[in-house]
Amino acid sequence: MTEPCDLTAVELRRLIGTRKLSPIELLESCLKRIDRVNPKLNAFVAMCEERAHAEARAAERAVMAGDAVGPLHGLPVGIKDLQETEGLRTVFGSPLMADNIPNKDERTVAAIRDAGAIIVGKTNTPEFGAGANTTNPVYGPTRNPFDPARICGGSSGGSAVALATSMVPICSGSDTGGSLRIPAAFCGVVGFRPSPGVVPSERRGLGWTPLSVLGPMGRDVADTALLMSAMAAYDARDPLSKPVDAASFATLKPVDLSSLRVAFSTDLGFAIIDHRIRDAFKHRAETLAPVFRSAQWRDPDMGRANDVFEALRAQNFLTAHLKRYEQHRDKLGPNIVANVEQGLKMTLADAASAHAEQTRVFRAFQDFFRDVDVLITPTVAVPPFPVEQLTIKEINGEPLRTYFHWLALTYAITNTGHPSISIPSGLDPTGTPLGLQIVGPHHGDKFVLEVAAALEAHLAGDPSIARPVPDLAQLS
Amino acid sequence: MTEPCDLTAVELRRLIGTRKLSPIELLESCLKRIDRVNPKLNAFVAMCEERAHAEARAAERAVMAGDAVGPLHGLPVGIKDLQETEGLRTVFGSPLMADNIPNKDERTVAAIRDAGAIIVGKTNTPEFGAGANTTNPVYGPTRNPFDPARICGGSSGGSAVALATSMVPICSGSDTGGSLRIPAAFCGVVGFRPSPGVVPSERRGLGWTPLSVLGPMGRDVADTALLMSAMAAYDARDPLSKPVDAASFATLKPVDLSSLRVAFSTDLGFAIIDHRIRDAFKHRAETLAPVFRSAQWRDPDMGRANDVFEALRAQNFLTAHLKRYEQHRDKLGPNIVANVEQGLKMTLADAASAHAEQTRVFRAFQDFFRDVDVLITPTVAVPPFPVEQLTIKEINGEPLRTYFHWLALTYAITNTGHPSISIPSGLDPTGTPLGLQIVGPHHGDKFVLEVAAALEAHLAGDPSIARPVPDLAQLS
Repeated sequence: MTEPCDLTAVELRRLIGTRKLSPIELLESCLKRIDRVNPKLNAFVAMCEERAHAEARAAERAVMAGDAVGPLHGLPVGIKDLQETEGLRTVFGSPLMADNIPNKDERTVAAIRDAGAIIVGKTNTPEFGAGANTTNPVYGPTRNPFDPARICGGSSGGSAVALATSMVPICSGSDTGGSLRIPAAFCGVVGFRPSPGVVPSERRGLGWTPLSVLGPMGRDVADTALLMSAMAAYDARDPLSKPVDAASFATLKPVDLSSLRVAFSTDLGFAIIDHRIRDAFKHRAETLAPVFRSAQWRDPDMGRANDVFEALRAQNFLTAHLKRYEQHRDKLGPNIVANVEQGLKMTLADAASAHAEQTRVFRAFQDFFRDVDVLITPTVAVPPFPVEQLTIKEINGEPLRTYFHWLALTYAITNTGHPSISIPSGLDPTGTPLGLQIVGPHHGDKFVLEVAAALEAHLAGDPSIARPVPDLAQLS
Repeated sequence: MTEPCDLTAVELRRLIGTRKLSPIELLESCLKRIDRVNPKLNAFVAMCEERAHAEARAAERAVMAGDAVGPLHGLPVGIKDLQETEGLRTVFGSPLMADNIPNKDERTVAAIRDAGAIIVGKTNTPEFGAGANTTNPVYGPTRNPFDPARICGGSSGGSAVALATSMVPICSGSDTGGSLRIPAAFCGVVGFRPSPGVVPSERRGLGWTPLSVLGPMGRDVADTALLMSAMAAYDARDPLSKPVDAASFATLKPVDLSSLRVAFSTDLGFAIIDHRIRDAFKHRAETLAPVFRSAQWRDPDMGRANDVFEALRAQNFLTAHLKRYEQHRDKLGPNIVANVEQGLKMTLADAASAHAEQTRVFRAFQDFFRDVDVLITPTVAVPPFPVEQLTIKEINGEPLRTYFHWLALTYAITNTGHPSISIPSGLDPTGTPLGLQIVGPHHGDKFVLEVAAALEAHLAGDPSIARPVPDLAQLS
């Protein structure tokens, strides 16, 4: 039996705007769902029900009064706990920040509120977002709704789980090495990594690096794009920000799949991929190939992607955590410590070499997109692993070089800054969702969303490759 | 007696378009001027007269046939010898490249040709553009047309001298620490440093750093803007490139100076400035202040500008020259060696710290522009020094920390990536031109050009602060 919380954000917004659904009724449906499944899954870790109720009442009054309302008016939203929220505990997954209550919203949060959304609470993350699991010493692990013994992916894991189980219709996330795409893949929802600067941030420590971005998540592409329309903007405080037609994200143009030239790649020519994922992806690609104008197996040149990402990531971590490492090493988890210590061993020449290789690969990748419209890969190299583990040490018996090496399929794309999205396509052989990563050319943010929406519609026609839905009865 | 080569590019283009001046006649006027003054000044170091003649004949035929012609149709242009030109020696000021004849134009050069300009030759630079002098072991020094015993500034020094003496109406340049602005200041012409990415480059080694840009030079702002309209573009190979309305640069809107809030700063709060320049600039500022809506003495927070620029610059030099340094150290001059060796001593933590400080200062500078519309400083901290010197070691008796420390007024602005321009304003107390650096907000490229054009028009009304013109009789 479908409850209001199970509807899409686009449909909910339509019902609210036409006075067929009250924001209060929707909020209550979401809170009821949270009460039901969150105890087992631990997606929401801090709540602000009182303020949400007050805002839902105000949202209802605004609709009834015929006031002009925003594109997210009355929609409950979960905010990733790496984003600062006014008056609401923001822990970053760290014991050092356990008592942090910001006195104002960061820009994206304020923008989401301005668009009319109602924040119901914060969604869990790993410590300072490091590691594509979602566990930390303050709140513990968030669990995969398809198999609570396994990880949900991360670092936007709380958001992905909240969406998969319809606790809320939209959630915010962020992505450095795959943190919007990986949890979306593991939980059967959608995570969109925009081009750097399109969702500006006043908090990025290194203004000109394309590594870390903020972005939207939803159960389907249209909902994700709707949230994107509220997050995108020009902001003078972000050096990579530029004027953008944000509202246009809410109106995706139909794309004819049979007009597209597609490249499939299982491993981007360099990543280590679990055989089961490789086989499942190959099968998906073969099933889908006939719907496109052309489809080929072709690996782009990702160059020394591991070296590049490690150096760029280390630079980010030194900026964010070196002082913390020097003062509170005992209160930091092994992932943060590993990144800082890797960074302390590197030279300026290493940084220069990584940046130069990143630039070379960017240009080669742009050339690649002269021949194809989109690239499709698996989103993650492995199925979700047990929730007790922070990471894995090998794939197919091959040892991994870092705790984040298993994210290579997403972080190689991060290196070049190209827009990418993960959409769900059925289950992997272990029974958890399989994600497809779709990558488009530089500045092709809207195009990537449009292709993803068209592919999603096609996948929906076959239950074996459509978006999988977790069994709520098992989670109550 | 005014010859065709002495007219502005805008006027020349109008005369060519209306068939009142033949491109052949204009080319011949320019070549005659080059023959007359170049032997003494050494601005042009490689010529392509034969091809230029053929192109001028074709340009004349096109006009007479009523063909559609480009915005630079028939205008002779000098290309800085750090830019690759098809079939024309491109030496980068280095003995290692003395025999380099590229087999194709780099993007900007091709764009300038596509717009109808006629390349007459290459303009001199220091070795690989390092150091704001313009001398190298292949071609020797380019001399200041106001005092041939002194430097013309650099690294776009050949271009600045060619313009100041009307050898050509427009020239290309590039700028890392001030290389478009400094020679413009020392030679009494205009150099515009655009925001990174607006003039895209397929050759930048480090795709995401805002340090090095290509840009236009002219004798006045309108000519500079006209060339800018041909250089600006979107190019898929530059990660910082974005869609841009390039043609709009050719049509500057009038700006009412009495509507502007201006900040003056002699030293940006941190730079060491020669007392004579400080006094001359203060006098200029006091003269100009009444024309603005408001004018105040106010230094922006440039933070650790020296540290930031040194680390970012070293990263560029390691990328471009580390291999060369390892293989041919004996064939590199002291500036390149100094930069590489400074870089080899730095760590990734140094790079991270510099980038983080750069980002902090960017945001503070953006805040600054909430209160003022433009910032005006001297372009250079010192008057031109003797042409025998590669650099200077002190200012007012204070020792300098690097061979490029005297460029601090321009490189501090480079750090933040803000658009800036140097326009001439009379002479300094030593008899060479004084440059005013005008800086505007992020993405304010066109605004900066418009303000500069309005200020230039105001300055033109008083010969003591108008653009100075060198005495050609002394240079023949």
